[in-house]
Amino acid sequence: MKEIIAIIRPNKMATTKNILEGLGFPSMTASRVFGRGKQKAIIQEISFEIQNKELLSQQGGMRYVPKTMLSLVVLDEDVNLVVEAIMKVNKSGQYGDGKIFVCPIEEVVRLRTFEKGDLAI
Amino acid sequence: MKEIIAIIRPNKMATTKNILEGLGFPSMTASRVFGRGKQKAIIQEISFEIQNKELLSQQGGMRYVPKTMLSLVVLDEDVNLVVEAIMKVNKSGQYGDGKIFVCPIEEVVRLRTFEKGDLAI
Amino acid sequence: MKEIIAIIRPNKMATTKNILEGLGFPSMTASRVFGRGKQKAIIQEISFEIQNKELLSQQGGMRYVPKTMLSLVVLDEDVNLVVEAIMKVNKSGQYGDGKIFVCPIEEVVRLRTFEKGDLAI
Repeated sequence: MKEIIAIIRPNKMATTKNILEGLGFPSMTASRVFGRGKQKAIIQEISFEIQNKELLSQQGGMRYVPKTMLSLVVLDEDVNLVVEAIMKVNKSGQYGDGKIFVCPIEEVVRLRTFEKGDLAI
Repeated sequence: MKEIIAIIRPNKMATTKNILEGLGFPSMTASRVFGRGKQKAIIQEISFEIQNKELLSQQGGMRYVPKTMLSLVVLDEDVNLVVEAIMKVNKSGQYGDGKIFVCPIEEVVRLRTFEKGDLAI
Repeated sequence: MKEIIAIIRPNKMATTKNILEGLGFPSMTASRVFGRGKQKAIIQEISFEIQNKELLSQQGGMRYVPKTMLSLVVLDEDVNLVVEAIMKVNKSGQYGDGKIFVCPIEEVVRLRTFEKGDLAI
């Protein structure tokens, strides 16, 4: 089992979800993060005082870059398929497209049924 | 050392925290995520324009499912105890109970003391 | 390749980012989390009804502790440098300084170019 973590543009989330669902991978977790790659933008100090509307504005010449972090756990044999699918729908060729990470997962438990391992995916 | 990540219902957070604290595991990190398991709900595009009140509403027949992601790092010998405790208090038997993942961790540093490894847990 | 995850005080984010950028590690992801270490504070149930201004207030004798989670993926040979740099600028010696975790990463893909592995870092 592997965890596939994709840091993508927020406006690519719907397309990415749809393609993964169509391939038989409906289970995922998403969250909002702030990213900085080899872009001009720089992550600022992130405080709870900052309101959403300010997140996209410039402050002192630096910009926040909101990203969506998508995570799903798949069987080893499905890693390539899922990674390729995420690649296909998230490449614009512009800075800020994001990254995919593949990480090892040692155990999974489905809380509803207490199924473990491959059965829980 | 292992990281135990639990994606649970937000209203189970207090109970889960209490049981883990009672067992001697007070250190944890939590964040808000959006989940989709084998439920009817589907993760929508997540943008910063979306307000909290809308997160739980339907949009185009799809629903967001707010979850709490709980993460703690424990010694190898404590993994089973912690996983079982989280299982016990989070199973309702209904779709949406969430999942637990166990991942390898290679090093931990406590920033306050610079302790490393098992001492930092 | 390793993922370095640092759970730090939000007001240390700018300093940490600057030091890492100066060392040649500009790519990172940040998110807001709630932490509880060996402090008196306790993570409360986290719901979407909770407003930012309440996050720092006491509720029933318990406090939320907002933290910033910083994540970056680096080559194996850069792990020590990055960990030491984060340690240096985040130790106040007071409870709540946070922790660093080092985790294995098996693959990285840069979505803009489809570069993989070390080239994608």
